[in-house]
Amino acid sequence: MTATATATRRRLGIGTVGLGWMGQAHSRSFRRIPALFPDRTYEPELVVCADPVAERREWAVSGFGFASATDDWRRVVDDSAVDVVVITAPNMLHVDIAVAAAAAGKAVFCEKPVGGTPAQARTAAHAAAAAGVTTGVGYNYRWAPLVQHAAELIRSGRIGTVTNYRGRFLSCYGADPLGSLSWRYLVDEGGYGVTSDLLSHTIDLAHFLVGPITEVVGLGETFVRERPLPALAGLRGRGTQSGTHYDRGVAGGPTGAVTNEDWFGAIARFESGAVGTFETSRTMVGPESQNAFEVHGTGGSLAWNLERMNELQVYLADSPATGYTTVFGGEAYGHHGAFVPGRANPIGFEDLVTIEDHHFATAVAAGAPFDPGFDAAVAYVDVQEALLHSWDTRTWEKVTTT
Amino acid sequence: MTATATATRRRLGIGTVGLGWMGQAHSRSFRRIPALFPDRTYEPELVVCADPVAERREWAVSGFGFASATDDWRRVVDDSAVDVVVITAPNMLHVDIAVAAAAAGKAVFCEKPVGGTPAQARTAAHAAAAAGVTTGVGYNYRWAPLVQHAAELIRSGRIGTVTNYRGRFLSCYGADPLGSLSWRYLVDEGGYGVTSDLLSHTIDLAHFLVGPITEVVGLGETFVRERPLPALAGLRGRGTQSGTHYDRGVAGGPTGAVTNEDWFGAIARFESGAVGTFETSRTMVGPESQNAFEVHGTGGSLAWNLERMNELQVYLADSPATGYTTVFGGEAYGHHGAFVPGRANPIGFEDLVTIEDHHFATAVAAGAPFDPGFDAAVAYVDVQEALLHSWDTRTWEKVTTT
Amino acid sequence: MTATATATRRRLGIGTVGLGWMGQAHSRSFRRIPALFPDRTYEPELVVCADPVAERREWAVSGFGFASATDDWRRVVDDSAVDVVVITAPNMLHVDIAVAAAAAGKAVFCEKPVGGTPAQARTAAHAAAAAGVTTGVGYNYRWAPLVQHAAELIRSGRIGTVTNYRGRFLSCYGADPLGSLSWRYLVDEGGYGVTSDLLSHTIDLAHFLVGPITEVVGLGETFVRERPLPALAGLRGRGTQSGTHYDRGVAGGPTGAVTNEDWFGAIARFESGAVGTFETSRTMVGPESQNAFEVHGTGGSLAWNLERMNELQVYLADSPATGYTTVFGGEAYGHHGAFVPGRANPIGFEDLVTIEDHHFATAVAAGAPFDPGFDAAVAYVDVQEALLHSWDTRTWEKVTTT
Amino acid sequence: MTATATATRRRLGIGTVGLGWMGQAHSRSFRRIPALFPDRTYEPELVVCADPVAERREWAVSGFGFASATDDWRRVVDDSAVDVVVITAPNMLHVDIAVAAAAAGKAVFCEKPVGGTPAQARTAAHAAAAAGVTTGVGYNYRWAPLVQHAAELIRSGRIGTVTNYRGRFLSCYGADPLGSLSWRYLVDEGGYGVTSDLLSHTIDLAHFLVGPITEVVGLGETFVRERPLPALAGLRGRGTQSGTHYDRGVAGGPTGAVTNEDWFGAIARFESGAVGTFETSRTMVGPESQNAFEVHGTGGSLAWNLERMNELQVYLADSPATGYTTVFGGEAYGHHGAFVPGRANPIGFEDLVTIEDHHFATAVAAGAPFDPGFDAAVAYVDVQEALLHSWDTRTWEKVTTT
Repeated sequence: MTATATATRRRLGIGTVGLGWMGQAHSRSFRRIPALFPDRTYEPELVVCADPVAERREWAVSGFGFASATDDWRRVVDDSAVDVVVITAPNMLHVDIAVAAAAAGKAVFCEKPVGGTPAQARTAAHAAAAAGVTTGVGYNYRWAPLVQHAAELIRSGRIGTVTNYRGRFLSCYGADPLGSLSWRYLVDEGGYGVTSDLLSHTIDLAHFLVGPITEVVGLGETFVRERPLPALAGLRGRGTQSGTHYDRGVAGGPTGAVTNEDWFGAIARFESGAVGTFETSRTMVGPESQNAFEVHGTGGSLAWNLERMNELQVYLADSPATGYTTVFGGEAYGHHGAFVPGRANPIGFEDLVTIEDHHFATAVAAGAPFDPGFDAAVAYVDVQEALLHSWDTRTWEKVTTT
Repeated sequence: MTATATATRRRLGIGTVGLGWMGQAHSRSFRRIPALFPDRTYEPELVVCADPVAERREWAVSGFGFASATDDWRRVVDDSAVDVVVITAPNMLHVDIAVAAAAAGKAVFCEKPVGGTPAQARTAAHAAAAAGVTTGVGYNYRWAPLVQHAAELIRSGRIGTVTNYRGRFLSCYGADPLGSLSWRYLVDEGGYGVTSDLLSHTIDLAHFLVGPITEVVGLGETFVRERPLPALAGLRGRGTQSGTHYDRGVAGGPTGAVTNEDWFGAIARFESGAVGTFETSRTMVGPESQNAFEVHGTGGSLAWNLERMNELQVYLADSPATGYTTVFGGEAYGHHGAFVPGRANPIGFEDLVTIEDHHFATAVAAGAPFDPGFDAAVAYVDVQEALLHSWDTRTWEKVTTT
Repeated sequence: MTATATATRRRLGIGTVGLGWMGQAHSRSFRRIPALFPDRTYEPELVVCADPVAERREWAVSGFGFASATDDWRRVVDDSAVDVVVITAPNMLHVDIAVAAAAAGKAVFCEKPVGGTPAQARTAAHAAAAAGVTTGVGYNYRWAPLVQHAAELIRSGRIGTVTNYRGRFLSCYGADPLGSLSWRYLVDEGGYGVTSDLLSHTIDLAHFLVGPITEVVGLGETFVRERPLPALAGLRGRGTQSGTHYDRGVAGGPTGAVTNEDWFGAIARFESGAVGTFETSRTMVGPESQNAFEVHGTGGSLAWNLERMNELQVYLADSPATGYTTVFGGEAYGHHGAFVPGRANPIGFEDLVTIEDHHFATAVAAGAPFDPGFDAAVAYVDVQEALLHSWDTRTWEKVTTT
Repeated sequence: MTATATATRRRLGIGTVGLGWMGQAHSRSFRRIPALFPDRTYEPELVVCADPVAERREWAVSGFGFASATDDWRRVVDDSAVDVVVITAPNMLHVDIAVAAAAAGKAVFCEKPVGGTPAQARTAAHAAAAAGVTTGVGYNYRWAPLVQHAAELIRSGRIGTVTNYRGRFLSCYGADPLGSLSWRYLVDEGGYGVTSDLLSHTIDLAHFLVGPITEVVGLGETFVRERPLPALAGLRGRGTQSGTHYDRGVAGGPTGAVTNEDWFGAIARFESGAVGTFETSRTMVGPESQNAFEVHGTGGSLAWNLERMNELQVYLADSPATGYTTVFGGEAYGHHGAFVPGRANPIGFEDLVTIEDHHFATAVAAGAPFDPGFDAAVAYVDVQEALLHSWDTRTWEKVTTT
């Protein structure tokens, strides 16, 4: 511990828009950071939180330690004490907030996918670029210490030339056909379905690990075509955390049409010459949170799965014992040791968000760019647009970089 | 044990063409069957074996108990004591032998894919149909007791309506770039690459478990484009079993071009409304013999992998403990108990071949059709042709049933 | 979310002694609790932290938010603003602090094993009982949501009558023979070795899940008998977190004798009629943090391992699919959902500490007893003493309840 | 393939006593060997089979190819065409047959544990030694290619000095309390319980991998104390294979007392300085055929489990990726390739018996000793006797080598 002297840390005022799951996660992270990273170059301060639900606003102050709370996100953007705007509101609100925050000269961190449509992500990115502010997008799985380790192994050439990639995100959150018709199932409210919600993570990990994708073919499908209309009581979710994400409707009651896709499959070519397959679903029965990749090179192979995020499977062709080695997370890998020392003592999902926020704040304090920023969000929507186009044309489509 | 009286069993003369790996496996299986299946309705007799290698012919007689051996496959087909011709020769020889055997009125069992090209498979099937003989194709993974159990669970509705299928066969047999340029890597000798060698198994399992595929899109790739020319010593393989399949060339020596595909990825729609993704490779580093499927229905999910062929992963949405259950093979499942009693005592790959041969011989003895017969081989090449066409046209292609 | 009104919460002043790994973990937990548990009945306030290292004291204030810090633990105990004393100092200091805190009428939470010897644990327990204060002991693995679920399954009779238990804690922290001779390896400083450090957790889980142990036989062994003397620089550890736990000495330098046990194996009878086997090690190569149990009943079986703490293996004899089911953690289980919603999104080690602190504080606020309190610590040392005695006498020994 | 010329092979007449599961397994193995091992130095000939069940005798001839069958085991021993007597009769018959076979100058292979009591094993061993015949005992798990590989890794020093061993055999064959009272549950008919039936395998593997055990402490228990009396129909078992091993009685019918132990736990010291823990059960719910070991050395660790017998877990402390590597069986390991080429294509339980028989016959043909022979059987019963004595005296007991 060679702690950074308090005096030299740059104060960062945090303003958060939306106190659903991810808003809570980021807010708790900023609250924890001083007790985790003594070497940090910044001092986060929770300034203001916006949320339409009064109870959440009360909790923002009494529980998270925000100095104040509001039901108007513009007051966050306009607050001169705010240096960083964290956008954790529903997708369709991302773009307006991001544009306003950038215009106000704030650093902007936005949950993926940044906007509900590809066009919105581009609008946000252009605004931020024009304003010259630091941006970040919540592709938080990149920050798993063992995913970082995988990236290092790949970049160092340890697994040779990558030939094959397999990415999937198979979640069960929509598997129950009585799960109610929340904004996530409506193209006009949540934007696209799994391609925005889950495939964005999957492709981003592929970008991070293997590089740009140049052409794709893809297919989407909706398996649960009608869902119960959400009851009024459903507006706040089953619990504090879950927002409208996990509500359950009543059988036999009124239903509405799902208007975006439940499942998407794709094949892709990378610029490097590698090929990849991708699959994502929100309605599949079986896998619960299988956000996973396998990457194969001429000298080895790596595999990771969020469900066992504290393990990396490593196959090195020149290893004395040939096979996949289960490498457990531990203090040897990235920031793992900030949370728990030793080996094979697990960290959790939210710790990834904390690492992400720490890196983002460090970049902001230094006035440096952050990766993944809004450029990464745009890189994904470029692929997304090619995929959606391919679904329509039934042919391979090139990815156009915008 | 209520053994079938010896007198009532139908004698079946077996003639085998090719004593490489699979020829040996089938021959050992017929030799073992009387000591495994006391209730069998037939009595196998190893009549004649054809192979170009003298040493194998000697072994066929001294080790397997064939009455005689020959270097001319036509003598197998012409032998009046032969009732069943087992074709385990290289792919490009399949069609001539099969047509001749059918013409001679023999039942014909041919290793997959039946011929080196789709056209050859159809020719063989037509000949057999015209002759009215029982046919079988070596899609032996169907016969794993736990794959049979999976099929029963699906057919009984236990996992609801199937929505998603994922099939892959990731073998490492070509992962070593010094693996020599055997017939398997040459389109003129082995026919197509992984689509014939491995994807055939993968699609057949999908057909078996979920039913017909109606349209596909696919991509192939060759990653190891040059391989060492095989040395003369390589003709017999590294050992008795392996034929020319696993030879290793010399670095820096003369090489030749690989002329068929190492890898293939595909997306498919099933007639039932389900969607599927498929991937197969012979050059990937990491998985060694990952012939695997996952099938997801509205009420549950199943997963199987040849590498752990004595385990079926079962997810039943109405189970008291929610998650994948590792069901070990044992005497409760199919013919497992013929090989070893109790639970969780493993059986092996060759035992699947034995079960296959037992079922095929039972069908022949009864004069009944066998599934998978040459119709199943044709069902696959119909899909294969659509896939290869799609690779060329870069669009989705409908599967034309021939 | 039906948050408890702020006004009704009881303020709890927290004083922490020792800011090594566990001191940090508890302090971060109290800092996070308001942002995790809106329904809490108490409001924690970090009052004062004692630690001999100046740099840690500085961090306690600037990073964790303690109002002040001191190098004298008596000032924590004497502080009238402190309601709860958290003891996370080395084992040999536990008893004096605990006795003083109890005498001062504070609630006392002490890391396991409470003291360095059985006698010290009893002294602490008697003092707390005499003072009538609420006590807690850091048997934190009890608080893993899936361990809680296991306990519920057992208590509800879901796995029938328990017949067999298998507990182990195989850590690698001493596997490196160059790991320096910290206080943990010295009976005069750390007290006993793995029986205090690791077996305490293992037996406590057995007590929690199956009930009292009545007789035991056991064997200890020390495999690394000499270790490098710690360098001065080693006093603070490799990093902020690790204290003197993970330092590495220099080969060929001066060494000292390890004076307590590296490994312990035991067999036990439970009061219920079940039998158990136990094993614990700090020097074994292979397992990294395998704190695991398997419990078998006449109707089912359960298995858990800290290395995969977000999974419980459940075998129910009456399940439709027979085998172990991998149940992933998620919001359905205990407090998991306070950290992350949905299913199979992992929580981490420190989250268990947070759950523990939340329950302890809730008990203190209510003036209620807490389980595991010092009684549980004594229950373990009763077993420990019988085990150590058995090691000496080479016979079975009865556990005497003190 | 450099096959041994037929003329130079030594003919070995095989006589088998008992055609239950293991008798069938060995007989099928001898039948398959010529088609698996072209380099063998012997030619097995199935001469005569003894079994009290007429149906089995018929099958011995018609299915296995024995030249004749008898209901009198003495005719096997007396047959001059028999060179090798394979004893697969119930335990209590072992000693008389073995002594008679040795006296007749036959090589003797006996299923474990050789006799129903330690004294019987010694009697058999002395008789064989006096007669100077080659002996073998069916500790067949030694012959798993990956267990052989584990032994090689240990002997080569690859995992350093062994410090810890953990062996267990947790079978479910008696878990059903309605499993009928077969000879296995009766001390007068089957001899001891799990210590003879299962622990014998576990200790033998420890002997094979780590060497002699010098002192032990142990505890036994019987959990299912009454079982249904077997119905007459049960004499032949549920199927051809299972003998009286797996019958199920009727609830509420007449029962009898189980007179030997269901479970045994032990701690041991090896001559080498290593320590070990052992556990075995026939009534535990959960594990189905968990015959497993973990062995830890100063430089690495190995783990194996029969349920996944085609996998060895290998941990090498100096490996580039730290963790357990799943090494799949394949042609690189021992005789695996005789059954199936390539990598990760599984072999089965019975293949281990075939490898065992091949090695035994090779030794007999060469007039060489075989390991494990009756000496190994005695080595186990020496440990067994110490364990049973310890159970009685409640103290550690030294193992006396007899």
